[in-house]
Amino acid sequence: MTSTTHGNLIIGQSGGATAVINASLVGAVEAAVADGRIAGIYGMLHGIEGLLKEDLVDLRQQPVDVWPRLLHTPSAALGSCRYKLQEGDPERVVAVLRRYNVRYMLYIGGNDSADTAHRLAQAAQQVGYDLQTISVPKTIDNDLPFTDHCPGYGSAARFLALATMDSTMNTIAIPSHYPVKVIETMGRDAGWLAASSALGKRNEMDPPHIILIPEQPFNAERYLEQVEAIYRRLGYVIVVAAEAVRDEQGQPLGAVGQVGTDAFRHPLLSGAAQYLVELVRQHLKVRARFDKPGDLQRMASNSISRTDRDEAYLVGQMGTRALLNGESDKMVTLIRHTEPAYHCSIGLVELARVANVQKLLPDEYLDTSKTMVTQAFYDYALPLIGDPLPQHAKLEKTRIGR
Amino acid sequence: MTSTTHGNLIIGQSGGATAVINASLVGAVEAAVADGRIAGIYGMLHGIEGLLKEDLVDLRQQPVDVWPRLLHTPSAALGSCRYKLQEGDPERVVAVLRRYNVRYMLYIGGNDSADTAHRLAQAAQQVGYDLQTISVPKTIDNDLPFTDHCPGYGSAARFLALATMDSTMNTIAIPSHYPVKVIETMGRDAGWLAASSALGKRNEMDPPHIILIPEQPFNAERYLEQVEAIYRRLGYVIVVAAEAVRDEQGQPLGAVGQVGTDAFRHPLLSGAAQYLVELVRQHLKVRARFDKPGDLQRMASNSISRTDRDEAYLVGQMGTRALLNGESDKMVTLIRHTEPAYHCSIGLVELARVANVQKLLPDEYLDTSKTMVTQAFYDYALPLIGDPLPQHAKLEKTRIGR
Repeated sequence: MTSTTHGNLIIGQSGGATAVINASLVGAVEAAVADGRIAGIYGMLHGIEGLLKEDLVDLRQQPVDVWPRLLHTPSAALGSCRYKLQEGDPERVVAVLRRYNVRYMLYIGGNDSADTAHRLAQAAQQVGYDLQTISVPKTIDNDLPFTDHCPGYGSAARFLALATMDSTMNTIAIPSHYPVKVIETMGRDAGWLAASSALGKRNEMDPPHIILIPEQPFNAERYLEQVEAIYRRLGYVIVVAAEAVRDEQGQPLGAVGQVGTDAFRHPLLSGAAQYLVELVRQHLKVRARFDKPGDLQRMASNSISRTDRDEAYLVGQMGTRALLNGESDKMVTLIRHTEPAYHCSIGLVELARVANVQKLLPDEYLDTSKTMVTQAFYDYALPLIGDPLPQHAKLEKTRIGR
Repeated sequence: MTSTTHGNLIIGQSGGATAVINASLVGAVEAAVADGRIAGIYGMLHGIEGLLKEDLVDLRQQPVDVWPRLLHTPSAALGSCRYKLQEGDPERVVAVLRRYNVRYMLYIGGNDSADTAHRLAQAAQQVGYDLQTISVPKTIDNDLPFTDHCPGYGSAARFLALATMDSTMNTIAIPSHYPVKVIETMGRDAGWLAASSALGKRNEMDPPHIILIPEQPFNAERYLEQVEAIYRRLGYVIVVAAEAVRDEQGQPLGAVGQVGTDAFRHPLLSGAAQYLVELVRQHLKVRARFDKPGDLQRMASNSISRTDRDEAYLVGQMGTRALLNGESDKMVTLIRHTEPAYHCSIGLVELARVANVQKLLPDEYLDTSKTMVTQAFYDYALPLIGDPLPQHAKLEKTRIGR
């Protein structure tokens, strides 16, 4: 006999992996194991792609130590995908789920994954198959709506704050070598990650000095003026730029150089940072270079925010509990409380309202220059990155007289 | 009355900063404070450049907590420089030292810094000024001769080993997205840093799969064959390339694209990694991208190797003691012992033998492919990176049958 209370649960991970997406998986599985109503606990390998291919693994058949260890293991242990549902796919997926008597589905992912979960819920409903789907939020980009923030962001933000503090110390020790440094961050269309580079900044001297986010159209002249002014004042300039920064015509900076450059030995421009470095070199005649941490910012196992990991576990756990409470076609959200201290409770929002909606960095988090964050952003983001950032020591510069 | 036993000590930091160069400064200062024979303890701001400008600070006038905190602070707290001595400079420096009654000089740096220290020792001798100089080794590049390894390398190697493990997990989770990743490392003309990316590799599947070092001339055809073979076998390929890799004509890969591309919107090629990514994109038609951690690899405060920090402290401490023992014109070296367990003792080598000599990665550390390291390299490098690397957890892939 098949009933919703005796069906199987399937879990998938989707989109770009994060340092804590496995914590959500662990939370979801442990909540399912703790409840007697779920029979099989299955995992999709590489998300919906694996589900379509019936490439499924048994999450009840795991060594006992795997779950606590996965809490500290970055990336998606089930494998991930970036697969947009094709025509006919939702019906095919529902047929697979029916074959395996899957009645509960948890999909851990970002905007696109929420859309996928929503379409599967609709497809199941259309054919009268009793399926509950819950989406568990995950993205370093922090661009999901209705949730205070997204698990994965806190750890990536911690990485970028530390990376900006640390790698800039080299510039400060020897500013004459490369006085201008550009650090390129991810973040899709949103400036949350680029903004997080400022979380270790305590005064005007500290890096970063200019933050370029996708929400603000880039103007080369203004940028060069700003770089030059800071260079004259401090002797060095740290610029943090989101890879998706666009010029005033909406063209991504990293793509500008691609026009007309296709010959083998004239490679395409690789990104915003390189473009920004070239601008400085050519117009200000100042040595500049860039760091591009790339995937490391989503994945660094030694920059995981404890708060982020705990919350990632919580949203996974509460995703399973929401299914068991009869909820469906919804995304788990984090609701912030500040009394007596920062903590989050859990909410739910209709997937139809979430799918493909992006939450951009609001204006109140930018000062009038539009290239630096406000105190309101620190208040928002500092609790998310966990333990306090280190305070690097400085020598007193008491000069020796002759 | 001035005598060598009552003169002042001056300390400078030079060259690219590291995550532990301050530990050497702390070791040197604490050894000087502990010994009654040294009067003033001075620091040059920005190395020899500061000395020439008499930009000197008093290291006895520091808050008590600064030294223990500097042990955990990356970068050069005194500031650094990359200054090649000009004609007349050595004599000018000696005049400054005489003015401040400096009889002991410690210079913490790499190859160029050893050369500087040596030339200053010679200049002092020529004018009959009683000066002892000792060079304290420091370089992430690990290319100083006569020392088993260089303080700074262990922490950078730890960073690169972890970064390769972590950021590659994203590729493995979702290989269809960007199956080929190139990670660009520093290392000047030596492959030590690129090689260290393999320290977390436990089997053939693990990254990196191809290591490109400056010592081995690059052949594009062989590279593409290797990438394609690994891609067919595993579905993804991780390449680690030193930024100074050169083609068979001795031309750095990062410079190849510069020929003929100088127009503003056709920027110069930024480096080896981008070149290697373009080769894959254009010839294998496979999506590829690169990470370039840049200065973060020399500077990450959360990847410091405890062994490296301890040894950096030791070489600083022993540098001061060598001065007090009457030694001069020498570099401190680390001598490895393996019984009963890995540890280092301290030696000294004539600066004349060190200056401007590079120790490259020896052939015995490369297998026959010349793109992968041998067990001998692991035996050499693993003790240097401190605590064991994390072992990331994996799920058992027990498939569900229908």
